This record gives sequence, structure tokens and C-alpha cells, in this order.
Amino acid sequence: MEKFERRTEAAGSLLCVGLDPELDRLPTHFRYEERPLFAFNRWIIEQTHPYAAAYKPNMAFYEVRGAQGITELELTMKYLRSEHAEIPTICDAKRGDIENSNRGYAVSIFDVLGFDAVTLHPYLGKEALAPFLERRDKVCIILCRTSNPGAGEFQNLESDGRPLWETVAMRVSTEWNAAGNCMLVVGATCPEEIRRIRAIAPAIPFLVPGVGAQGGDVAKVVFAGLDAQGKGLLISSSRGIIFSQDPAAAARDLRDEINAARKAAHAAR
Amino acid sequence: MEKFERRTEAAGSLLCVGLDPELDRLPTHFRYEERPLFAFNRWIIEQTHPYAAAYKPNMAFYEVRGAQGITELELTMKYLRSEHAEIPTICDAKRGDIENSNRGYAVSIFDVLGFDAVTLHPYLGKEALAPFLERRDKVCIILCRTSNPGAGEFQNLESDGRPLWETVAMRVSTEWNAAGNCMLVVGATCPEEIRRIRAIAPAIPFLVPGVGAQGGDVAKVVFAGLDAQGKGLLISSSRGIIFSQDPAAAARDLRDEINAARKAAHAAR
Repeated sequence: MEKFERRTEAAGSLLCVGLDPELDRLPTHFRYEERPLFAFNRWIIEQTHPYAAAYKPNMAFYEVRGAQGITELELTMKYLRSEHAEIPTICDAKRGDIENSNRGYAVSIFDVLGFDAVTLHPYLGKEALAPFLERRDKVCIILCRTSNPGAGEFQNLESDGRPLWETVAMRVSTEWNAAGNCMLVVGATCPEEIRRIRAIAPAIPFLVPGVGAQGGDVAKVVFAGLDAQGKGLLISSSRGIIFSQDPAAAARDLRDEINAARKAAHAAR
Repeated sequence: MEKFERRTEAAGSLLCVGLDPELDRLPTHFRYEERPLFAFNRWIIEQTHPYAAAYKPNMAFYEVRGAQGITELELTMKYLRSEHAEIPTICDAKRGDIENSNRGYAVSIFDVLGFDAVTLHPYLGKEALAPFLERRDKVCIILCRTSNPGAGEFQNLESDGRPLWETVAMRVSTEWNAAGNCMLVVGATCPEEIRRIRAIAPAIPFLVPGVGAQGGDVAKVVFAGLDAQGKGLLISSSRGIIFSQDPAAAARDLRDEINAARKAAHAAR
């Protein structure tokens, strides 16, 4: 968690860049490379690293290429560790199995691939996630209120007057975070929920996907989600940056837009 | 789904064999093979195929070996398709992301790896799982009430007098199953819940993990979970079969134990 804090400070950025290299959407000349995903990722990292508080590859876009895709993810992680070791890495894997299987996933993601953090499903409860939560050297990012249009189907179900996402936020904040290594996923598409989750979990950082392609509003997210120190947010964009004409400019612009909103939020307090 | 029904009939078996080859637990001579997971799986399949209604590799035990592990899973799937094409395969991956990423996972699991079915988290709702649910040629197995000790933390939360797992069962049964391609994961460790889910979802087959190492009782599961046709169950065992002294005997014995319980349940009705 300190690595995340150090990097946000040093880069003056709350921007997380999603490395989701859909083959069909890569610039043509990358598609014919021997290792297209890795070549593209390396280029994106070269373009965006001054503005990135974190990088977040989503496993789906590597698994879709079979063992070759995993090899290219391994190469991407090696490159990041050797060239930009100060930038934290999030494996957007949305894992969540029983304890015995989670042991395998934790080794795979934290030790084999070398990620600093992983996204996790809460559905099986804290006990099942122990192999992740016990890793004080790593960060566990629990799905709370997701950014997709149908997120409310179960997440909005109320129990004791509280929607499921509120209960998840409360549990993670008060019971799961003993090692101080938890974050929550809260979608940019629902700023009112972000505000309520910030009230419930004042000290937990949020990973916020859903700006850009999914339509979330940066200023609303920042106003709703900043913690008392004016931090506690990582705002993630993938397609909006990596498939833009100029990824460096897109990353810089989004970092600046986030920082302008932080300044405005600070002034308004 | 028809493939599952045909195989259960033909093999006279409701047994699903979990292919979870933890390297440290393999018989010594497999550990020094060039492809230890594949060599072990092939041996397990040779030993157990007459008794298996399905095979279910859990992704965690392959991902833990990096790209090499995925290659060994690909080899296992190729072997199954060429030697035992009639036996359905379940990818126990417990995936669940937003729609765009799920498209990648669906291609990876159904098309690249060639599985007939996949296990899925319900947390993001039906809309997000569309890339899986739309595949009428494949089976979607939704986590409902899991077998782990801490499963109740969120799954037991009541909304409108109904625990979350009941709401999941009801939604899947009445709304998600338009293509007739859904199953539910219901843990063997909670037979009372199995009985209630059978009442809510009379026509949905259940995948039931948790007998053997996790302590579920076969007879109770069968009495609680059989559908009106005396079918609708796949009872899964991994460690109890694959790490036993004699996997063939362990698989045969469990198949027979399940069938004895089916007979007793039929007689009792």
C-alpha cells in the first residue's frame, strides 16, 4: 500500500492505466509482431509512464490468447519491474474461489506474475479470501459497486435497510482490512454510491473504473470519492487512453483533468 | 446441456472428477516429468473415465504454473477431446467481469480451450454475463450457495425475507435460463440449502462440490438435490479421487455410493 501512496505523490497522479490490448483494436503494425500484446503494452508504457499512478492489465485480454497471452503478460510484468519498478501493478483478474484454490491464484498473481495487487469477488466471504488478505505485502481490491449497467441486480438488494454494496464496504472497512491492505472497486458511473461508500469506509482507497468508454464523470467521481487527505482514489481508464490517437496526450489530459477536479474539490471544502 | 444428459445416462454416473493437480501432491514420479500436470491428468483420466460424467479442471492449479500451466491445460483438453469427446468438460474458473472483458473470457474458455461449461460469479448481474449466457452451445454454471465455511457472510444476507443465494437461484431459474443453458453451484456442505434451491429451481441442474475433502455427505446431497426425474445433479470430487492410492477405485466407489443413494431416494418417494 505504501508503494501506491509513494507513487501517487511522486507522479502527482491518481490515474491508473488499464493495459487491455484487444488484438483487433491494436494499431495495424503491432498486430503482425511476434508478440503483439507485449509490443503494444511496452509502447503504451513508454508513452504513459510519467502520468501513471498504476498499471492494470485485465486478465481476460491475455487469456483470450491462450498460453501465448500469459507469456506476453509475463513479459509485460518483467518489463515494468525492470524499467518502472516504482509504478504499482494491479492484476484485474476478479478472482474468488474457495480457500484452497485461492492459494493457487495468490501465488500465480502475486509471486509468479509479480503483481502488487489483485481485484477480488466478495461473494465467498472473508474466510475464502484469506490467502489474499493474509499477504500484508500485497493489496486486495474487493468488488463493491461495479460500473456496469446491470450492476444493481444483486448489489442493490437491501438487507437491514442497506444495499449489498454498502454491507460489502462496511465489512471490508471494519473487518477485512486488519492488515491495512484492502481497497474497494467502486464504479465511476455511480457517483452517489461513491459518496456513500466514502462515508462508510473513510480510510479505504477506491479503484474507480468506468470513466471514458463507460461514461463516468471525472469531476463527480473526484468530488464524491476523495478522502479527508484529498487522496484515496485511483481512477482507471483503459480504452480511452490506449486506443486513442495519442496515448501520451490522453493520459496526461486525464491526469490533469483529475488533478483540476481535486483542486476544485479542495477549494470547495 | 444435451451432452451432459447423454453422458450421465450412458455412464450411469452423476460423478464429476475435479482435475486439480497440485504439483506438491502428485505422486513423485510425475513431478519430474517435463509436463507434470498433463502427465498426471492423462493418467487420472485413463483411470477414471468409465465412471466420470464430467471432468472439471480448476484454473487456479494451472495458472499457478504460469504460461506452462496453461499449455498443460490446453494439452489436457486436447487429449480429452480426442480420446473421450463424449465426456463434458467444465472450466472451474469462477469468472465474472464487465461485459467487454467477459467476451474475452468466453472466447478463451469456450473456444480457445474448448470447454463445454464454465463456473461464474453472479455479483455483476445478468447483463454483464451476456457473453456467456448467449452461448446456447455452452453451459453457464452460476455460483449460488458455495461449499466453504465462510460462504454465509454475504450469501445469507436476507432481502425481502430471502437469503441472497435464494434470490440468485430464483433469478437464474426464471430469468437467466432463457437458452436452457444454466446450472447452479450448490455446496455439498449445506444439504438443507440444496433442498430449498431444488424447490425454487426445479428444472436447473446443480453442480455440487464439497464431498470428500470438504466433508459433504453424499446421501444427504442426493436426497436433497435430485430433480423430479431422479437426475439434475453433478457431484464433484477432486482431492478425494485424484490423490487417493487408487483413483479408479475411488471414482468407482463414489459413483456407486451416489447411485445407491439415488436408488434409496427413488424408493423413498
